[in-house]
Amino acid sequence: MSKSTGCCQGFLHYAFDYETPKTLIIPSIRVGFVFRFTQFLLLLYVVGYVCVVQKAYQDRESVISTVTTKVKGFAFTNISNMQPRFWDVVDYNIPPQGDDSFFVLTNMVMTPGQTQSRCPELPTPSTTCVDDCDCVEGYNDPRGNGIQTGLCENYSSTVKTCEPTSFSLLAEAENFTVLIKNSITYPKFNFHKRNILSHINSTYLKTCEFNRQTHPDCPIFRLKHIVSEAGEDFQDMAVKGGVLGILIDWSCDLDWWARKCYPKYTFRRLDNKHPVNNVALGYNFRFAKYYRTAEGEEVRTLIKAYGIRFDVIVFGTAGKFGIVPTIVNLGAALSFLSLVPMLADWFILTCMKKRDLYSRQKSTYLVEESEAESASLSTTYGTQ
Amino acid sequence: MSKSTGCCQGFLHYAFDYETPKTLIIPSIRVGFVFRFTQFLLLLYVVGYVCVVQKAYQDRESVISTVTTKVKGFAFTNISNMQPRFWDVVDYNIPPQGDDSFFVLTNMVMTPGQTQSRCPELPTPSTTCVDDCDCVEGYNDPRGNGIQTGLCENYSSTVKTCEPTSFSLLAEAENFTVLIKNSITYPKFNFHKRNILSHINSTYLKTCEFNRQTHPDCPIFRLKHIVSEAGEDFQDMAVKGGVLGILIDWSCDLDWWARKCYPKYTFRRLDNKHPVNNVALGYNFRFAKYYRTAEGEEVRTLIKAYGIRFDVIVFGTAGKFGIVPTIVNLGAALSFLSLVPMLADWFILTCMKKRDLYSRQKSTYLVEESEAESASLSTTYGTQ
Amino acid sequence: MSKSTGCCQGFLHYAFDYETPKTLIIPSIRVGFVFRFTQFLLLLYVVGYVCVVQKAYQDRESVISTVTTKVKGFAFTNISNMQPRFWDVVDYNIPPQGDDSFFVLTNMVMTPGQTQSRCPELPTPSTTCVDDCDCVEGYNDPRGNGIQTGLCENYSSTVKTCEPTSFSLLAEAENFTVLIKNSITYPKFNFHKRNILSHINSTYLKTCEFNRQTHPDCPIFRLKHIVSEAGEDFQDMAVKGGVLGILIDWSCDLDWWARKCYPKYTFRRLDNKHPVNNVALGYNFRFAKYYRTAEGEEVRTLIKAYGIRFDVIVFGTAGKFGIVPTIVNLGAALSFLSLVPMLADWFILTCMKKRDLYSRQKSTYLVEESEAESASLSTTYGTQ
Repeated sequence: MSKSTGCCQGFLHYAFDYETPKTLIIPSIRVGFVFRFTQFLLLLYVVGYVCVVQKAYQDRESVISTVTTKVKGFAFTNISNMQPRFWDVVDYNIPPQGDDSFFVLTNMVMTPGQTQSRCPELPTPSTTCVDDCDCVEGYNDPRGNGIQTGLCENYSSTVKTCEPTSFSLLAEAENFTVLIKNSITYPKFNFHKRNILSHINSTYLKTCEFNRQTHPDCPIFRLKHIVSEAGEDFQDMAVKGGVLGILIDWSCDLDWWARKCYPKYTFRRLDNKHPVNNVALGYNFRFAKYYRTAEGEEVRTLIKAYGIRFDVIVFGTAGKFGIVPTIVNLGAALSFLSLVPMLADWFILTCMKKRDLYSRQKSTYLVEESEAESASLSTTYGTQ
Repeated sequence: MSKSTGCCQGFLHYAFDYETPKTLIIPSIRVGFVFRFTQFLLLLYVVGYVCVVQKAYQDRESVISTVTTKVKGFAFTNISNMQPRFWDVVDYNIPPQGDDSFFVLTNMVMTPGQTQSRCPELPTPSTTCVDDCDCVEGYNDPRGNGIQTGLCENYSSTVKTCEPTSFSLLAEAENFTVLIKNSITYPKFNFHKRNILSHINSTYLKTCEFNRQTHPDCPIFRLKHIVSEAGEDFQDMAVKGGVLGILIDWSCDLDWWARKCYPKYTFRRLDNKHPVNNVALGYNFRFAKYYRTAEGEEVRTLIKAYGIRFDVIVFGTAGKFGIVPTIVNLGAALSFLSLVPMLADWFILTCMKKRDLYSRQKSTYLVEESEAESASLSTTYGTQ
Repeated sequence: MSKSTGCCQGFLHYAFDYETPKTLIIPSIRVGFVFRFTQFLLLLYVVGYVCVVQKAYQDRESVISTVTTKVKGFAFTNISNMQPRFWDVVDYNIPPQGDDSFFVLTNMVMTPGQTQSRCPELPTPSTTCVDDCDCVEGYNDPRGNGIQTGLCENYSSTVKTCEPTSFSLLAEAENFTVLIKNSITYPKFNFHKRNILSHINSTYLKTCEFNRQTHPDCPIFRLKHIVSEAGEDFQDMAVKGGVLGILIDWSCDLDWWARKCYPKYTFRRLDNKHPVNNVALGYNFRFAKYYRTAEGEEVRTLIKAYGIRFDVIVFGTAGKFGIVPTIVNLGAALSFLSLVPMLADWFILTCMKKRDLYSRQKSTYLVEESEAESASLSTTYGTQ
């Protein structure tokens, strides 16, 4: 009909004629139940799992964080071949600034009075000279630093090193505490928070100490407690050193629980304690204090420091309602909903007794041109 | 009928017979308009919001970055009880290497001449000995370091500390500048860039200073300017210290604007200035310089350093066309498009005057077997 | 029909009547082939590209990592105007702790004996005094540190600096090695691993050296090798300094290849060697060693250190089967599958010879009320 009218009307027909599929209604409770039940299961999945459990309707963003740490506590050592000595944070905490990785010295090998200009014990400067110097000096003349056993172990094929004793110098370090201040930002969601929560007052902060049960929000941690929560023994770890992770998880749902967005602390040893291959154990580094003698010569005290490096690792993603992920997930769910009729069709055409009846009334075979005349007429009769 | 022929042909029919829904065409402008308009709205959403605004067709990757910083400037102090003294970057910048977190000392409490071996003022070494030593010495004998007021405040229940005066020592620090060099990489997209853009020449770099209006690309920042953009007062912050974030946002669209991928700088104080609970304010740490006396005894000068720690935080995600997100988002939009006919059907069967007419011609009730005989007879005839 | 019965039954009908589209079966191999082939292409895309190549069925998480580094090796310098001197890790590695960014000093300008209290050469303390002091002293009296040429270059309009010679002091640094220990975690997948793989034993670790072909798993790197893999020349880089990235990629498929999750090392210079604008080249910083003279005066040795900063950058995402991304991607693919019938319909109604036949039997025009009675009989006529 549209072809008989003008071009414009033809276009109107083309654009605005609404084409809707013809349907066959099957008034069978059984079929209907299978259909609705499958729809219900899918809806349950979408609402229950995708929305409630996975929160797939949310935009996500990773945390941006800044950490300052402050170690407190001090120790007193009174070992036979060393003068009684106090150790405060300045002596054992390296570097001193207190950023997200701090080192607490627990053991050391000290070699004082080194000069860098010559190495008298070794006639030829070889690649192991400095290390051997240290070690030979340490061996021959412990000179009151008391921690070096004087035993030289083969460290690698070319370098020797001096092993410390099996007890740590600063055993008291386990009672040091560290205050961790952590501010986080989710820039996309304009959300800022710090781990000193608003209900913590100075009185509480003066006395509290982190404990998962009794003080889960206190940002002050006793080193021994951290290490033992990580499943390690502080005194064991103190001898050879190690790396311990303080993991702060800021994963938050900013739609409903923005006010309940709290940091979750976990502790984990980050270097292997007993790796299968038993290599590259512990954690230590060397540093020196440089002095100038009265004669103007530069001498240094070499310190091989063993201790625990604490790495504060802040991670987490925040989620907040976003239109794109919502659309994407709803769309995917809708796609599956559009599968349900296929499933129901398959069910009625395969499993039902009346499947031939359904099949006959649902599907029509194409009628060839010659027969079409009479047939298309009977088709419409059949559907009444 | 395909069943009457061979198995192979039956399979061919099963696999290649094309089954297409029968449709009813409703030549109503009103229905057609509702249908097309809804389709148009959805398309607008897909093209406009998902593609243009959210760029959901893009793969995303987080930035990998490296930062070096270099502070310049120096100060001159001439305070009553201290010798006139110059301060250059080596004295106030800790640590000196200039990585993504640098500290500028603005105030200090200095306690020279400490020995770690004994604490004469206190007969019994208690847990607060070292701190009290410092404080008592500072109190009794300010010894020309001039910054310590000598007042002892209760810092916590067990530890006392010495408060500095309310004006900062290095007030001139506000005029220091810092050059920030930042190179970034998006490894998945093989995109590299640095914040010293290619149009910046050495002449410009010698004279420029970051200013959001006049010099938005200059990587040299005056500390006072950074602090004031963060909404703080430098002199206020200098007394007790603080942490200031220099946030560099490298979010870029690498499809169209790869050449316009510029860093965006923002500044934010990262520790709370006036937290509700008023605890753990400011930023300070202690460090020591170790000396050896002519007699070979080790002494140290303890410095409690107050200052501003600047954390350069680089973040951002780049997006570039990716086939998977495109497919996912188009697919989701298509799912919604497939909802439009349902909506239109609901509209014509509920809101239109002729709804009964439409309903009768669109849907057919299943005809039971008994009646089916005659009816389905004509139907099946038709399919022959 | 349902309206004649009670309300409850009406609802039952409404809820459980199953409405299935009536279909027309076209037994044409050609149409069927087009239909099935398009379906097959889409399936191929879904299985092949989305699942196998892009692994879009996986949940993703970014790596959390901790790094410790240990530099080994030492150098011997015997330059005319300086005493023969040994350099070990303590002297050239700054900071000493060995975290993910370490600096190896290769060149330096040393200015000993500075006092901060006065600047005799300059009568008026100007903003460039300290720097000028250094430079003038260096110029007039190289005083045996041997590295300073004594030439003063214009560094910026207000500050002068003293350039080092064009050969590096610690040329031997290229043979230093660094052991990188890197532990990673994917917290969501509870996956932990370190870069010292389980098949590496201590014997191997004592002798191995990273080489992409022969020792791809050895975590010990010769500095020269790192720099040359990054496409740079160590001696060139050593003079003015630079920043070199050691990129460790931990991207892993934890579904199938969790045991084959190995780190992949790449090396890249992170500062521009020859930027277009030729500004802000190299890497250096100043630090000082503080001494006290016999008279108790504090003096410092100022060192301008040139060298290579090595930044260990750990990145990567792990993927593991996740129900939500699977559903989303399958859903999107299904949406496209639902497009295939539209495509096939368009094909049969446009490109086929019998398109009018198909069209007549597929679509029926709405018949108006008045005619409807007789007409549902003549529906198909109307479309002819």
